[in-house]
Amino acid sequence: MKVSECGEFGLIRALRRLTGAPEGDLLLGAGDDAAVLRDGAGRRWAYTADALVEGVHFDPSYTPWYSLGFKALAVNLSDLAAMGGGGPSFALVVLGLCGEEEVSWMEEMYRGLSDCARRFNCRVAGGDVVRSPERTFVSVSLLGALDGEGFLVRGGARPGQAVLVTGTLGESWLGLQFLMRGGGPDDHRARRHLYPEPRLEEGRRALRLGATGAIDISDGLLRDVGHICEESGVGVDIFLENIPISDAAHRLAEELGLDPLRAALAGGEDYELVLIADQRLAPLLVEELPATVIGRVREGEGVVLLDAEGRVVDAPETGYEHFREA
Amino acid sequence: MKVSECGEFGLIRALRRLTGAPEGDLLLGAGDDAAVLRDGAGRRWAYTADALVEGVHFDPSYTPWYSLGFKALAVNLSDLAAMGGGGPSFALVVLGLCGEEEVSWMEEMYRGLSDCARRFNCRVAGGDVVRSPERTFVSVSLLGALDGEGFLVRGGARPGQAVLVTGTLGESWLGLQFLMRGGGPDDHRARRHLYPEPRLEEGRRALRLGATGAIDISDGLLRDVGHICEESGVGVDIFLENIPISDAAHRLAEELGLDPLRAALAGGEDYELVLIADQRLAPLLVEELPATVIGRVREGEGVVLLDAEGRVVDAPETGYEHFREA
Repeated sequence: MKVSECGEFGLIRALRRLTGAPEGDLLLGAGDDAAVLRDGAGRRWAYTADALVEGVHFDPSYTPWYSLGFKALAVNLSDLAAMGGGGPSFALVVLGLCGEEEVSWMEEMYRGLSDCARRFNCRVAGGDVVRSPERTFVSVSLLGALDGEGFLVRGGARPGQAVLVTGTLGESWLGLQFLMRGGGPDDHRARRHLYPEPRLEEGRRALRLGATGAIDISDGLLRDVGHICEESGVGVDIFLENIPISDAAHRLAEELGLDPLRAALAGGEDYELVLIADQRLAPLLVEELPATVIGRVREGEGVVLLDAEGRVVDAPETGYEHFREA
Repeated sequence: MKVSECGEFGLIRALRRLTGAPEGDLLLGAGDDAAVLRDGAGRRWAYTADALVEGVHFDPSYTPWYSLGFKALAVNLSDLAAMGGGGPSFALVVLGLCGEEEVSWMEEMYRGLSDCARRFNCRVAGGDVVRSPERTFVSVSLLGALDGEGFLVRGGARPGQAVLVTGTLGESWLGLQFLMRGGGPDDHRARRHLYPEPRLEEGRRALRLGATGAIDISDGLLRDVGHICEESGVGVDIFLENIPISDAAHRLAEELGLDPLRAALAGGEDYELVLIADQRLAPLLVEELPATVIGRVREGEGVVLLDAEGRVVDAPETGYEHFREA
């Protein structure tokens, strides 16, 4: 079977079987937003890597180099946030370049990366530069400290718990549509797409307050909640009327003739956190993070959308998977 | 100026200026084989990343997938060795795939990677899979424990010290020529090229015994010793008659009609360690690692080759640099 036939997630499942179960100081292995290690002092570290490939994850015609650097680090910091991390972190950057790039573009990219690092308590520790004749790629790995002994996992959802989300959804995907139709990258409408904000402080607070599960939204809300369902062996009901969509997203969707709810459910790259917590904790999380309750964990499997009357609604196409584009 | 005009090393220098000097728990930043971090217990960790790109670092027509996985991890473990590391380590693997690959090939690659990991006390902690339409790439990052507080650096050479090298040189490059001329990957002549042995134990012993500097040989002996010269602000004299070349390398060079000395000096991908130590320690390192004394650090700059009578000899082309192929 080819990789394109089994898909990104099928391949990852096949490869996970070969690396074996975590043991010793590796507390959590492949299959979550990050692995978790334990150091000599007992401190926990989240450890993750993510790559952005030209023409797949970004289009250089509307992605400023500064933004590419910022985002390449931010998406990794978002994985750290999804583990409950908000401590100091260290990044390595592998650049694949064709050679025709201007050195000044690379410096711009590094400025974006360094600015993101400074803002979120991260140090760029080093990396590698290799030749990649057709496409630029940026592969970042991140090692970030976790507070205490616990961490948030995709497999941490149990029936009866509440499902929450930080911030608002859909603006990143709408911003991408704005850019693809010729919108300028300096326009505020492109901001959420080009400069995602890793929810480090929210992830840390959620862990401290007692949340048990989390994932960051990169592939789209429905697909990412689906990952929680698979890893936890549960189903999730999503309350459509509760999905947080900003006024800006409503305006931009109207301007572009697009459905803001579809953008929020399936758009992806929001880099908000989906959080799982006991019902009694939900009001505290809503107030302290802040966050919005958008659903409930139940027995069974899969994600079901419910309208205000509790009726099941059909789901739109559900987000991005490598090798299986919509 | 384009990246192809300033070259890999010029670009790295430009980007290093933007990330700033290491501080806090980042003890060593970009510019060495690995960065060095300090954890909460004071333990030191080497932290490094290296990518292999299809058609640049490997040719799938003569690189078995098993070997690609083994090598992708081994070259990172070699960077850990060059810092003096030999403790447990944790790897993340980012795969860039076009989708046409067979899943079974990827499993073969992961078997090679997992076998290398098991052999050298490394755990594969996770990673990422992304689409890379034209070329497969494998980007590995590695976090490896160091013994004690010290570590070996490229900037650790002072005039008067001895220059040593572990193992023998040239066989990897000769093995590559053998493969490029149609030799089989299962043949013993291809082994050193396809399955490099990271010198973890040698690096650890060298650090314990008091060596001060090191680099692993990826770009070729002369170029890598050149990196030591640049980072240490010194020159190095290499004694040509002392360069260790195995009988197997001599035989293979003769078979291929190639110069074994040129292979040893400029071939690259040996993944042996160049070590810098005080003269009084050299005999101990020679015996305990084992290693061979191949030169002497002096004031000035650059690498000079000396024959048995101490006369200066012209250097051959000196190894590989991305964006500046010979």
